[in-house]
Amino acid sequence: MNTNIRLEAIPNIEKLKGINGIYTDDHAHKDVLSFLEKEQFESKILRSLEEAIEKSGLQNGMTISFHHHFRDGDYVLNKVMDVIAGMGFKDLTLAASSLMNVHEQLIKHIKSGVIKRIETSGMRGKLAEAVSNGLMDIPVVFRSHGGRAYAIETGALKIDIAFIGAPSCDPFGNANGYSRDNDTGIVCGSLGYAKTDAQYADKVVVITDNIVPFPNVPSGIPQSDVDYVVKIDAIGDPEGIMSGATRYTKDPKELMIAETAANVITGSGRLRESFSIQMGSGGASLATVRFLREEMVKRDIHASFALGGITGQIVKLHEEGLIKKILDVQSFDLDAARSLKNNRFHQQISASYYASPGNVGSAVNQLDVVILSALEVDVDFNVNVLTGSDGVIRGAIGGHSDTAAGAALSIIVCPLTRGRIATIVDHVNTIVTPGKTIDVVVTDQGVAVNPRRNDLIEALTKANVELTTIENLRRKAIQLVGKSRPIEYTDKVVGVVTYRDGSVIDLIHQVKDPIDVS
Amino acid sequence: MNTNIRLEAIPNIEKLKGINGIYTDDHAHKDVLSFLEKEQFESKILRSLEEAIEKSGLQNGMTISFHHHFRDGDYVLNKVMDVIAGMGFKDLTLAASSLMNVHEQLIKHIKSGVIKRIETSGMRGKLAEAVSNGLMDIPVVFRSHGGRAYAIETGALKIDIAFIGAPSCDPFGNANGYSRDNDTGIVCGSLGYAKTDAQYADKVVVITDNIVPFPNVPSGIPQSDVDYVVKIDAIGDPEGIMSGATRYTKDPKELMIAETAANVITGSGRLRESFSIQMGSGGASLATVRFLREEMVKRDIHASFALGGITGQIVKLHEEGLIKKILDVQSFDLDAARSLKNNRFHQQISASYYASPGNVGSAVNQLDVVILSALEVDVDFNVNVLTGSDGVIRGAIGGHSDTAAGAALSIIVCPLTRGRIATIVDHVNTIVTPGKTIDVVVTDQGVAVNPRRNDLIEALTKANVELTTIENLRRKAIQLVGKSRPIEYTDKVVGVVTYRDGSVIDLIHQVKDPIDVS
Repeated sequence: MNTNIRLEAIPNIEKLKGINGIYTDDHAHKDVLSFLEKEQFESKILRSLEEAIEKSGLQNGMTISFHHHFRDGDYVLNKVMDVIAGMGFKDLTLAASSLMNVHEQLIKHIKSGVIKRIETSGMRGKLAEAVSNGLMDIPVVFRSHGGRAYAIETGALKIDIAFIGAPSCDPFGNANGYSRDNDTGIVCGSLGYAKTDAQYADKVVVITDNIVPFPNVPSGIPQSDVDYVVKIDAIGDPEGIMSGATRYTKDPKELMIAETAANVITGSGRLRESFSIQMGSGGASLATVRFLREEMVKRDIHASFALGGITGQIVKLHEEGLIKKILDVQSFDLDAARSLKNNRFHQQISASYYASPGNVGSAVNQLDVVILSALEVDVDFNVNVLTGSDGVIRGAIGGHSDTAAGAALSIIVCPLTRGRIATIVDHVNTIVTPGKTIDVVVTDQGVAVNPRRNDLIEALTKANVELTTIENLRRKAIQLVGKSRPIEYTDKVVGVVTYRDGSVIDLIHQVKDPIDVS
Repeated sequence: MNTNIRLEAIPNIEKLKGINGIYTDDHAHKDVLSFLEKEQFESKILRSLEEAIEKSGLQNGMTISFHHHFRDGDYVLNKVMDVIAGMGFKDLTLAASSLMNVHEQLIKHIKSGVIKRIETSGMRGKLAEAVSNGLMDIPVVFRSHGGRAYAIETGALKIDIAFIGAPSCDPFGNANGYSRDNDTGIVCGSLGYAKTDAQYADKVVVITDNIVPFPNVPSGIPQSDVDYVVKIDAIGDPEGIMSGATRYTKDPKELMIAETAANVITGSGRLRESFSIQMGSGGASLATVRFLREEMVKRDIHASFALGGITGQIVKLHEEGLIKKILDVQSFDLDAARSLKNNRFHQQISASYYASPGNVGSAVNQLDVVILSALEVDVDFNVNVLTGSDGVIRGAIGGHSDTAAGAALSIIVCPLTRGRIATIVDHVNTIVTPGKTIDVVVTDQGVAVNPRRNDLIEALTKANVELTTIENLRRKAIQLVGKSRPIEYTDKVVGVVTYRDGSVIDLIHQVKDPIDVS
């Protein structure tokens, strides 16, 4: 018994670790409330965002984070920033997994000094234009999804407080991107990007419009990562978060590109039993799934898994048994979100598990094939997905550089020209993904293989896939639309584009004469 | 483009964080192997335990960890320790989640100096006897499951290398306590205790007899936590890991205790819609489920969740819809393991999520009722589950002190006497769980309520549950079997019993005259 125990009398006590004094009755906390009473009186639910911000210990100069699973339907970031601004905080770093059109009101918080610095995967709309016009004193740091997770894990990006919007949450913080308990809330599916934030942030605040009974498991964010829960009236606009099922394109140019991309995959020899794949949500990319499906059925081939941002098209193949498992970091449409909720082998993964170059289990490294889009590709196969042909920011790195590096076969699908503007250029405005990691460019006017990939040139030639060179594609583009006049920039750096390991791969400058994109 | 970027020319570069130099072509690693080739050539599978131990950087004096989900069927700990001993390592700290009869060969590694220190939840058989006889120079530190997780999280217990036996693992480290891909391997269900080790250990080695295709998801241990995988011929003996379904007791004394315990729960008013419960795997505890089930059906009451070590009895109620969700840190039988594999709302949780007092989401805090066993209970309601009536170590703290503190109603079920030995004593040999956290003691000879719990005394009296006092139970025990002679100890401390927060709640001394327990 513990009467008269003296620590110093324990032999070799100096070699024991983690011994916290001698037990007294004060060490044991016994709480006799029933579970229902605990839900009521001891839950993590606070009365307001103000209270959560106060309790979380926000101070000037700290770093706060947000996820973009609500895309253009997000109310959370704007609402939280308004409250923070109202409380008088300054000099914050905003670390968002991405920023959308809907976040244009950040401009006022930057102007007023509430936000001093931004880290994000991308930026669009008026905010992006303003940044391109030199709004900020300190350049925005752009990171890929994997690069962001890596920065968080290594402490390069230290998140003080993560604000996580969630379509359902129980009183103790188990949160999901859907609800099993009612149909009242909105739906976003995977909370993959927020998972890494929740794991590493000092304090985590879940913001929901839908409190559900404990335990809200399986959960996207576990209660063990959550400090506070705040219920607000509306966290997002379903319309902006996701439309219904993503639909097949009927655009003949996109269909042609898609069919060619499918032929490239088949011809490359990568379409083998247990292959793995990631596909974007663009029209051509989605249509590729359709052509690939035909080939898979014909040849009785099954994918071991599909990765990344998930669409209803991928879900359909999963439910048909053609794709065995789905690793979902972001659900692009309602069908994907529904499948995440209902299909046991449709699994939610974190940004780190998805793509961090520092993670010993980064899933992009297990990819056979990724299909990616591009705003520009240059003759060195470098890809730009971040700035428009006018030099203005209007995109996001996303998982582009992560998957291109990880996949054995990375395919860019894009039209040779868009309107009067060439997609294949001499030099991309902004390098996001280095040409070294891009293998094939599929356009409506021909297919070019990176000369580093002699194996692919041989395989595709053998498979009767007609090939050209990237220089030929460039020449064709010039023939069609001519050369663009060079964009004029000032000396001011407005964005620092990082590669997945945090190295600076390019700089974005202030545009001298911003083109009106409205 | 990145030609001629100079970091120092970026405005306010000093305010940007996590910028790792300028990108060069060396930063991008492109791997063109197919997924199947990667599985073959880039997997984490090493050729031998020796190679894994070498690569993991083991050094003299380090701390290594193991889990006890294979219980008395575990081959992994013994095998790894033999290899480590053969490689000549010394002075290691062994941090096991628990130790069983099967681990008696640790004695030789302690004698030879390979193991210098042990932390564990419990100890049994010859090893425990040897420790009680003064085998070790440094006392064994005993921690509860929650206390161990807390020590790991706070760094008090720093694990250098975790060795995790797993019934299935893919080449990149996603591991499970069962296999979905074949029926050849053994089964242990939840890997809950190992989850926390995997998350915090510097290096993690998964040891399996069953390599399955990637991705082995949903996974108990994610690839992101795993460094190496080693395949060995056999990781355990199914017989020792778990018998089939845990069976109902037919012992009339246990049945009487069980029925009384069910009456106590009902009478306490805790049996309400959405209540929560944890039950042990002992005969009386399991039988309590049966009586409780009848009452739940009769009154149309559903539990929101069952927690902890899970048995087939709990699974049956889950599959009947009487228990909505299961949070499983350890699967006690094959039915539980099968349910974990097949039932989506039977969820695997980590030791930390289960019971860490430092975890903001510790599930024990949401318990209404826990039913626990005891080797001894004293008149202050203190409980001993660690040493026998002869003073020799022969048990484990497990989640005893964690759940007693967390649950609104903690019930001890035990016979008043076992053979010629009283269970209700004046002072327990070893305090594991403080009386402050124990509410009711149910024996075959009467029910005693902790006088701190006037509310319970009132409720149970009202519900016509016959009550006595703990002093009366003690008197009855003395009448039946008399007083035991005091155990004689030496001055040597062989064990330090910690409460869940790491404070020393009791010491275990070397026994002067160990009783032969064979």
